[in-house]
Formats: sequence, C-alpha cells, structure tokens
Amino acid sequence: MFVSHLGCPKCHKTYESNRKIQLCTCGSPLLVEYDLQKVKKSLTKESLPQRRNDLWRYRELLPVREEKNIVTLGEGMTPLLKLHNIGADMGLSNLFLKDEGIIPTGTFKARGATVGVSMAKELGVTALAMPTNGNAGGAWAMYCAAAGIRSVIVMPKDAPSIPRKECVIAGASLYLVEGLISDAGKIVGRAVADYGLYDASTLKEPYRIEGKKTMGIEIAEQFGWDVPEVILYPTGGGVGIIGIYKALKELQELGWIGPRMPRLVAVQASGCAPVVRAWQEKKTESVFWENSQTVAFGINVPKPLGDFLVLDAVYATNGCAVAVTDEEIMDVHALLGRREGLFVCPEGAATLAAVRRLVQEGWIEKNERVVLLNTGTGLKYPDSVDARPPVLQPSDSIKL
Amino acid sequence: MFVSHLGCPKCHKTYESNRKIQLCTCGSPLLVEYDLQKVKKSLTKESLPQRRNDLWRYRELLPVREEKNIVTLGEGMTPLLKLHNIGADMGLSNLFLKDEGIIPTGTFKARGATVGVSMAKELGVTALAMPTNGNAGGAWAMYCAAAGIRSVIVMPKDAPSIPRKECVIAGASLYLVEGLISDAGKIVGRAVADYGLYDASTLKEPYRIEGKKTMGIEIAEQFGWDVPEVILYPTGGGVGIIGIYKALKELQELGWIGPRMPRLVAVQASGCAPVVRAWQEKKTESVFWENSQTVAFGINVPKPLGDFLVLDAVYATNGCAVAVTDEEIMDVHALLGRREGLFVCPEGAATLAAVRRLVQEGWIEKNERVVLLNTGTGLKYPDSVDARPPVLQPSDSIKL
Repeated sequence: MFVSHLGCPKCHKTYESNRKIQLCTCGSPLLVEYDLQKVKKSLTKESLPQRRNDLWRYRELLPVREEKNIVTLGEGMTPLLKLHNIGADMGLSNLFLKDEGIIPTGTFKARGATVGVSMAKELGVTALAMPTNGNAGGAWAMYCAAAGIRSVIVMPKDAPSIPRKECVIAGASLYLVEGLISDAGKIVGRAVADYGLYDASTLKEPYRIEGKKTMGIEIAEQFGWDVPEVILYPTGGGVGIIGIYKALKELQELGWIGPRMPRLVAVQASGCAPVVRAWQEKKTESVFWENSQTVAFGINVPKPLGDFLVLDAVYATNGCAVAVTDEEIMDVHALLGRREGLFVCPEGAATLAAVRRLVQEGWIEKNERVVLLNTGTGLKYPDSVDARPPVLQPSDSIKL
Repeated sequence: MFVSHLGCPKCHKTYESNRKIQLCTCGSPLLVEYDLQKVKKSLTKESLPQRRNDLWRYRELLPVREEKNIVTLGEGMTPLLKLHNIGADMGLSNLFLKDEGIIPTGTFKARGATVGVSMAKELGVTALAMPTNGNAGGAWAMYCAAAGIRSVIVMPKDAPSIPRKECVIAGASLYLVEGLISDAGKIVGRAVADYGLYDASTLKEPYRIEGKKTMGIEIAEQFGWDVPEVILYPTGGGVGIIGIYKALKELQELGWIGPRMPRLVAVQASGCAPVVRAWQEKKTESVFWENSQTVAFGINVPKPLGDFLVLDAVYATNGCAVAVTDEEIMDVHALLGRREGLFVCPEGAATLAAVRRLVQEGWIEKNERVVLLNTGTGLKYPDSVDARPPVLQPSDSIKL
C-alpha cells in the first residue's frame, strides 16, 4: 500500500485514506497522495513491459490495497496512433491520437470506473449513486455489476441513448431527468442524503481521478518516458486533464520523466466554454455557463467542480484553453473517418478542431509532438453519421 | 519475409505469395504457409513482452513484407477475462472470455482487416469489394480509408445499422441488398468481374485468415503457452475457428506449445446451423441452409465457403459443434451484463449458451479451462437491450 493520505488542494487539510470520504470540509475535491519514495523501491519503469497489459500495471500508483478488490474488465494501454494523413495535410510531422475508444464500455470513463468501483468495493460500499452525461454512468454501472454493487444512475433525457442500454443490461437503477447534468446532480444529492448512498459524482469521491491519471502515465510510457510537447483534452468535468497533470507531476517526482511538462490544452465547445472564458480572463475559477448547448454532449458541463484544478494545470504548463464550434467539430469528425479510418466521438474530434486553430495561430509548431485524446468510440454516437445507401435487388449490378 | 508460399488445403497445389491471387484453380481457399524454421531463428516467445502491444508483435507469423505497408489502428492483445460470477454459478472454476469488443471497429473483424488491407496495399490494390453481414464491411472500410484504398461494400438490408455508419464515415461505396450475405456475394462477384476489383470476400483472398489466427496466438500467450482445454467460437463464415486452429498448429511446429490441442467448438444458431448438421452427420462439408434466420446476424451464413476447414478443425481436436436457440442466446446475453458487467454481441453470447449446454451434458468438466470468444461489443447492437427508464423533473426525488 503506497497511499500516504488524502489531501485538499485548496485548504491543505489532510485525511486518512482507508475510509469512505467525499469532499473536504471546505467543499473542495480531495486528491490521493502517495509515498513516492516507497513507490520507487517497488516499481521501476524497466519492469513494466513484463507486467499485465492494462492500467493495473501501475499498481503502486493506484490506491487499491488488496488485489482481490480489483474489479477489471481489461481496461487501459489504449493505442497511440500516428495520424499520417491528416498530419501531412496540416503540415504536422508528429500528430498522434490516443484512442480511448478501444477500452471496455468504449470511453475513457472505464478508467475512472475500474479504480473508483474497486475502491468502493474495498471500502465496503454496497450501493452508490451518480449523475452523468451518459458514458460515466454506463461505465460505472458495468463495473458495479461485476463487483456486485448496486448503482443508481441519473442522466439528462437528451443524453445519447446507448449508455442507457449499458445501464439497463448492467442491472442499474436508471433515471432520466428533463434538464442538464447539474439537475441530475441535485437529484443524486437528495438520493444520497435520503438513502445513505455512496456519492460517486465527479470529484466527490477521490479515486476516479486516479484511474483517469493513467492516461498520462501511458502517454509517457508510450513515448519512451520523453513526453510530447502538447496534449489536447476535451474538457467537461475536467477530470481527464486534472488526472494527466497529476500523473506527470508524480512521474517527475519519481524521476521517470524530466522537468519539461507538455503544454496542456483544455478544449471546450463554444456553446459551453466556462473554462475557456475563465482562462481568457485569467481567472482561477469559472462561472456557471447559462443555456449551454453542444453536439459534444459529454463536455456540456456548465460549471465543473474541479475548474480551479483544470485552470491550474493549464497555467502551470503554459498551456491554453480553446473553444471550437459544433460545425468545426463535425467537420474534422468526418475528416478522421475519411482520412484515417477512425470513428471518434464528437468530444474527441473537438481536439483536432482545436489543433487546426492552434496551428493557424502559430501556437503549435510544425515539428512538435502533439497528442489528441479521443475520449470515446464513435460507435456510441451512431446519429453523428447520416447513412442512406442505395438498396439493390439480388439480381442488380453495381454501377461504379 | 517468412512466407514460403500459398497452398491449397484441398488439392495441394502451391502458388507464389507475392502477387494478387484469389482462390485455387480447384475453387478452394488458399492458405499462407511459412518457413517456420526461419521464423524460429528470428522470433522467440521470450522476446514478445518487449514488443509492440498489438497483433503485429507476431510480425514473423504474418504475411506483410515491408513495415511501411502495415495499416494499423492499434488492434489486438484483447483482454482475457475470468468470469468469476457466472463461472461460480455454473460450477466452473476456470471460465474465461476473450473480449474482442475491445478492438478498433468493435469486433474481431479488425484483425482480418488490418492484415488483409495491409497485404492489399503491399500488392498495389487500389480498389476492393466485399459482401458482409456488417462488421467485416465496417472494419475493411475503415482500414481501407487509412490505406487510401477504395472500398465497395455490399450488405443485407436487414443487417444491424451501425456498421453502415462506419462504411459511410470511412468514405466507402456502400450498397444494401434485399437478401442475405449470399446475395450480396453475387453482386460483389459481378462488380469484381465488371471493374477488375480485388475480391476481399471471406476466404477469397488468403490473408484475412492470417489476421484472425492471431486470436489463437494471443490465447496461447495469455495462458503462458499452456493452452486451455476448450475454446468456443461463434461460427458463421468460420474464419475465426479456422484461423485459431492454423495458429495452434504453427505454434506446435515452433515448439511453443505442446502436442495437446484445445477442443474447438463451433457454435451456431439453431436457425442457421449448416456446420452443426454436417458434424452431426459426420460429413466433411455442409449443405446450404434454407431460410436461415437468427438474432445473431453475424453467424447467419447459410453455406460457408470454408466449411470443410471448420469441420476439419473440429474433428482433429476432438471438438464438437453446437446449435443454440435465439432464446438461449438472449438469456445469457442479459446474464453477462448483470453478473459480469459485459455488454457482448449476440454471437459472443451464443458461446456461453453452448457452454451451459455442454456442462449439462458432461462434455465440459468442472475444472477445465474454457475460453469463450466474444467476437464483438454489444455497443454495436443497442437494439439488443430494451431501455425504458422513468423520466424525472429536476425537483423530483428518487424512491428506492
């Protein structure tokens, strides 16, 4: 066990790690802190290739105490693909996409779920609840099913429909709400209070982020412990980018990577860009975005609880925050299919739209190593493609 | 380059490997043969953990000559999961599922596509055509897009709809047909003749099977080169089971596994079971199954071209062939979600239905290591789950 304690990044209060805990008394999310000197003695980067082929290879940097509590569906070590064709089109010689569609439940949410649910199991949780824009709910429902934990999931009525199917087949208690994820959050808050459920809302338990941070560790490992210059992440709740930044800091402390950080870019949709607005105004927190709307439903989060941590990561790495329009998103979404054979989610496409912008502005240089995070598979968004193929009779011939 | 030649398993005629070729003059599919003594000198099983984390780690056992022709989206090394809960329910202490849903395009068809399209590229193909029940078409369209090869795809109108979206976003020329895959095959045959297209129909080019065989190599590697007792495979065109058998024979020749073979089980749907009928009648070929129908659309293949190879694999390993009903399939489909957190495709579920039957019959013993191949993700089959969750207003509370 390598966790030393839970720490508040706002008021710096500390807590023991081995009990059920949600937010700090000051209202901030808590972060898991490790005894990295002890980690160093047990884990070397040279030993990794011999280890299991999923994110649990980084066992010492994850919070679960006992092996038997690990609830896994084989998640992690997702491919890092070089985008040869689009890179050439844009004049970029080192454009990469890390494909989080190739993971159980089809999105990066599986990373948070495997660690979050494993910890819930270790802490004796028998029922939990969460609001979601869809994919986190699907993932947590699935991992809860494997763990034998009851899950109560609330999502907006307008959320994409396939995650509902995941919740139902997993046996979750699923509810829709006429409203946004913030409304779902209020309903979950009442259920948590009424029934004593474990609150698995974004950042209201400290372990989900530990799963997400493995994206950062994997990127470092996949680049041979020489991190790229730029990483772009679609930012809704922000746990992905917070996690990647946390991972990189831990890897620096371990001495596995050098002092240079990748510039982290928070990508949002122009219809819901609270973090971008805060960054433009040099603020350290965001303001609730009224009447938010975007085709990239997963990043429709009007006021993320961890906004200050996202902004900290962006400022500290000399990164930036970029908002792209739905039109730009769907344009590069089609481009990724046609040129690279990739069917990505709209959120993932948003990062390529941001690259195109940042290359034009000269913020990204032609030879820099740039990594897009595609957070999920397009298979969960069949409505994002319009297909009306001709129908033939068996005796017909094709005219090409 | 470790390929020695292409060989006909029926008439034993041989062909050079480095040119465009389809079937043997006798009408049989051709198989790729390797110089395994030469492979032995270049590839050791001990070196594998240090290699890339996809199926191209088995480079010497794959046909592509030049590295630059490899068209990859990060496919292979899919998780091998132990089914703790369902195993316990069934009294099986070693029940595993290899999850081919965790792969680009969401099905095992990506394996055939990465090798098939890479070889097409190497051979200078600029346009190819294929009939499909959906998933192979989606996969080949995607890999062709990455390779810059034109693809012409024909699938039944009743095939699941998501693969159509893959074809369209990949820029394929997609057609539906009022009929079965056999009707699509006839249309493709005419297009191939009319326009000189490369025919990528199942087993009509010899390389797809080389991609599929990597499932067999991975299973052996994941079991530490001590193969399991039983492998169950949902059987439509049959390339998966033929490929696994071919891989295991090659591994035996390399001396990486011992003389014992896993018993291979071909699983079909009772509404389309030509291979099962042939096996029951101890035949070496199947007869066209009239009016075939099943919820597991991917295995609705009334007369597979490679039926004799499937039957050979089953006979040679003391395996068997089992047909399960649509009702049994959908029953265990739900069970896999509820008990293991897995959303599988109906074809994959069929293998668990077959296990249940074979355990009851005593054909599978309680302590045997049994591997189910789940050939694809349930995310491509959202209609397989009925979800009608209650809709709340933001001010509502949940009653548990």
